[in-house]
Amino acid sequence: MPDPSQRDLMLQQEASQQIGGRVELSEAEQHLNTILHKLKEHDMTAPQFPPAMHFFKARNLIQRSPVFRLIQKMPKGAALHIHSSSLVSEDWLVKNVTYRPNCYICFTWDQSVRFLFSNHTPFPRWGCSFWKLLETLRANLRDPTDFDNSLMQNLTLFTEDPEKAYPTQESVWERFEQIFLAVSGLITHAPVFKDFVYRGLEQLYNDNVMYLELRTGLSRTYELDGTIHDQEWSLRAYKTVAQQFMEKHPDFLGTRIIITVHRVLSVSQVKAAIMEAIRMQKVYPEIVAGFDLVGREDSGRSLWYFREALSLPSELGISLPFFFHAGETDSEGTEVDENILDALLFNTSRIGHGYALTHHPLAKEVSRKRGVAVEVCPISNQVLKLVSDLRNHPAAVLMAEGHPVVISSDDPGMFGSSGLSYDFYEAFVGIGGLSAHLGTLKELAMNSIRYSSLSPSVKDRAIAIWQRKWDNFILENSPQRFATDKI
Amino acid sequence: MPDPSQRDLMLQQEASQQIGGRVELSEAEQHLNTILHKLKEHDMTAPQFPPAMHFFKARNLIQRSPVFRLIQKMPKGAALHIHSSSLVSEDWLVKNVTYRPNCYICFTWDQSVRFLFSNHTPFPRWGCSFWKLLETLRANLRDPTDFDNSLMQNLTLFTEDPEKAYPTQESVWERFEQIFLAVSGLITHAPVFKDFVYRGLEQLYNDNVMYLELRTGLSRTYELDGTIHDQEWSLRAYKTVAQQFMEKHPDFLGTRIIITVHRVLSVSQVKAAIMEAIRMQKVYPEIVAGFDLVGREDSGRSLWYFREALSLPSELGISLPFFFHAGETDSEGTEVDENILDALLFNTSRIGHGYALTHHPLAKEVSRKRGVAVEVCPISNQVLKLVSDLRNHPAAVLMAEGHPVVISSDDPGMFGSSGLSYDFYEAFVGIGGLSAHLGTLKELAMNSIRYSSLSPSVKDRAIAIWQRKWDNFILENSPQRFATDKI
Repeated sequence: MPDPSQRDLMLQQEASQQIGGRVELSEAEQHLNTILHKLKEHDMTAPQFPPAMHFFKARNLIQRSPVFRLIQKMPKGAALHIHSSSLVSEDWLVKNVTYRPNCYICFTWDQSVRFLFSNHTPFPRWGCSFWKLLETLRANLRDPTDFDNSLMQNLTLFTEDPEKAYPTQESVWERFEQIFLAVSGLITHAPVFKDFVYRGLEQLYNDNVMYLELRTGLSRTYELDGTIHDQEWSLRAYKTVAQQFMEKHPDFLGTRIIITVHRVLSVSQVKAAIMEAIRMQKVYPEIVAGFDLVGREDSGRSLWYFREALSLPSELGISLPFFFHAGETDSEGTEVDENILDALLFNTSRIGHGYALTHHPLAKEVSRKRGVAVEVCPISNQVLKLVSDLRNHPAAVLMAEGHPVVISSDDPGMFGSSGLSYDFYEAFVGIGGLSAHLGTLKELAMNSIRYSSLSPSVKDRAIAIWQRKWDNFILENSPQRFATDKI
Repeated sequence: MPDPSQRDLMLQQEASQQIGGRVELSEAEQHLNTILHKLKEHDMTAPQFPPAMHFFKARNLIQRSPVFRLIQKMPKGAALHIHSSSLVSEDWLVKNVTYRPNCYICFTWDQSVRFLFSNHTPFPRWGCSFWKLLETLRANLRDPTDFDNSLMQNLTLFTEDPEKAYPTQESVWERFEQIFLAVSGLITHAPVFKDFVYRGLEQLYNDNVMYLELRTGLSRTYELDGTIHDQEWSLRAYKTVAQQFMEKHPDFLGTRIIITVHRVLSVSQVKAAIMEAIRMQKVYPEIVAGFDLVGREDSGRSLWYFREALSLPSELGISLPFFFHAGETDSEGTEVDENILDALLFNTSRIGHGYALTHHPLAKEVSRKRGVAVEVCPISNQVLKLVSDLRNHPAAVLMAEGHPVVISSDDPGMFGSSGLSYDFYEAFVGIGGLSAHLGTLKELAMNSIRYSSLSPSVKDRAIAIWQRKWDNFILENSPQRFATDKI
């Protein structure tokens, strides 16, 4: 018979390799872990297992899970992969923003909407009905609630029958890009923009997230009279709003910006964007974290296509950190699939998604050796139809191997997944399986600070603040006798 | 800019790591490969991508694919993971076997059927209607075709709306085990049994498979008068039928048996089965390959549960090769999930399925170092609901890393996937993606011989026969000018 102690040793050895496997837990943590394990077993053996279901159908179940409620209370560190247009949930956009004065709406021919704030009826827009003032429109409606619900449907992918609404990757991406256009008229109105950012930070803070690295194209904002502000205005607005927020919430560390451009652009346009990003990073080093390309990889241009543009900083002897989306694809062996290797060749600081990374042993080794963390966004990958059952998410391999991983929510507003807790739940219960434990959650949270773009000294401060929050979290949720022991 | 030649080197390095990456292709092979690549690109960019669909819906599409038709013609080597009850397709069972004289049927309360051959009306069976002679029953039917179709539905999982018919893993496994019971009355009738085995070999041979390693519980067979033959009778029947088949098809290498028992048995029952397997291996070393446990892992007993039984051979100083099913689960971190490590600790010769292997870096390393091949059965894993889109199959990781892998079809009769070609298609187009090429197919075919239980000398002969078939395959399918060059 195989030696049982040798077998135990191998099981332990394997367990110690995984994320959180080398985290030492205090007695109180171990007790909470035991509870957590039981709760998780309960979720895993229930007739409906949320991570095996589409998130839109699983959200209600997740909300009722005690594991989720614990994760909500847990200090999760930083959100490192969120896109600005999708920072805030659609109900706030509809119930708050569209109720503001001077908000016009038009209905596009392809069943979407556009918004514009203006002190006069805007000039008609091609492909859209005539502009109507929302205030007037609502006054004539018998049921504004119904109308508001339909507006919300226009500002989120969330729907009750996702399989029917989005049968293919193409259809869901089309709708996805459509919603960005619908949202943009609302959030690029300068006064709304500041409230929007504030509200975004608030939603994250309420979910026990302490810092945000935001990907944004720094859209130009506009005033009621049509005045347009430049990108720098937006950058300064982020800074100002974050400072205001931090004054009220001193345990929040603010936000830094990853400037993005869409991968449909030409090489020369990307060159120009990079030069501008370099300039802004020089003027606002405390807020500009780096640069990225966005948009669907499968149908977009590859990193290697943009190689001349992406080489500019190093040719100029300037460091502009990259945070590339790469490998958000299941098309193995295509050009798109090479983005992961190229992201690494261009010295990316992190990999956005890296869904395809496990198909590339060499790239995986390089990213591990260099400590290039993968930003795993479980719900996003599921909603955008890369994977249906999250137990099959390739991050399960990365987590089992202790690869540097952080968890984020990509487009929480669009997916109905406000904050990070839903994605942490999917990663913890679905991707991590029963092997993932309190140490896993702890390491994932700490990773988010460790692999952030914060300076070493701010990181130290962040870890100290996070540790205090963590200790409180344990104190408040570990069984009573430990709580009283410490009081 | 990253050095483009350095980049090419890295891409090549990664490509060379994958299965088939170090296979050198002749000029004719390279030409066929170019064609194959284009055909595959065509399949991958079609509006409906078969590996992303349920096999039951994709089968028609696959049949029309030129990639599939090439794979059908390709000499695929050996089928190393097929279960005997599911060796032959349901249409042969209905159209041939149930039309034989003395075939009785009864209809169970839970909507299945049972069969029995008998020279008198059999004694009623609990849970079933009275036995009816099929001949009489059919004579009274207006539409026997309709009836036969419904019989076929009872003998296969194949159905047009699989998602509706099998909403959960539980429901599909229940139906799966039900069908085994339905089939058994037909195929354990002694005269049918021999024809059944012959037909099974024929179906494989027609799909260009040259050798079979069959997992079977060696059920007792029966005669019309109720006489029961023992397990040895079945074993000898396999041997005799294989010999008969080989006389007519000298390029076929026969079949060897992996004796199986169900994992619902007790430790002492498994002990007895192992002792019997040891005895039969001693008497019939040329046909008994080894031992395995079968049945759903998630709800069954673990290998470690049976440790006392599984240690018997080594304690007796006898070598009984194991070919364990292990890791046919997506429940990470459970006891079931430990089967992979235990299979290796008990020195398994191969791993059946190993779906969970990539979640276990240590076990993966051990299996690789020891050359323990993983028997990947793509369609089975999809039908039994471990994965929906085969691009997400974990074997993509194994293939990318050059892990020892063989492809098999598990239960072709049950899945409507006669032979190996359908599974090769899914592995080549879906799991392997665009990275997999002719060298991949070549290595997978050669692996099936290399990792078989055949003796070294027979392996050499097998490889020689296979190579001749392969050369012919290339000659016949490479562009014309190469064909004529060689003639």
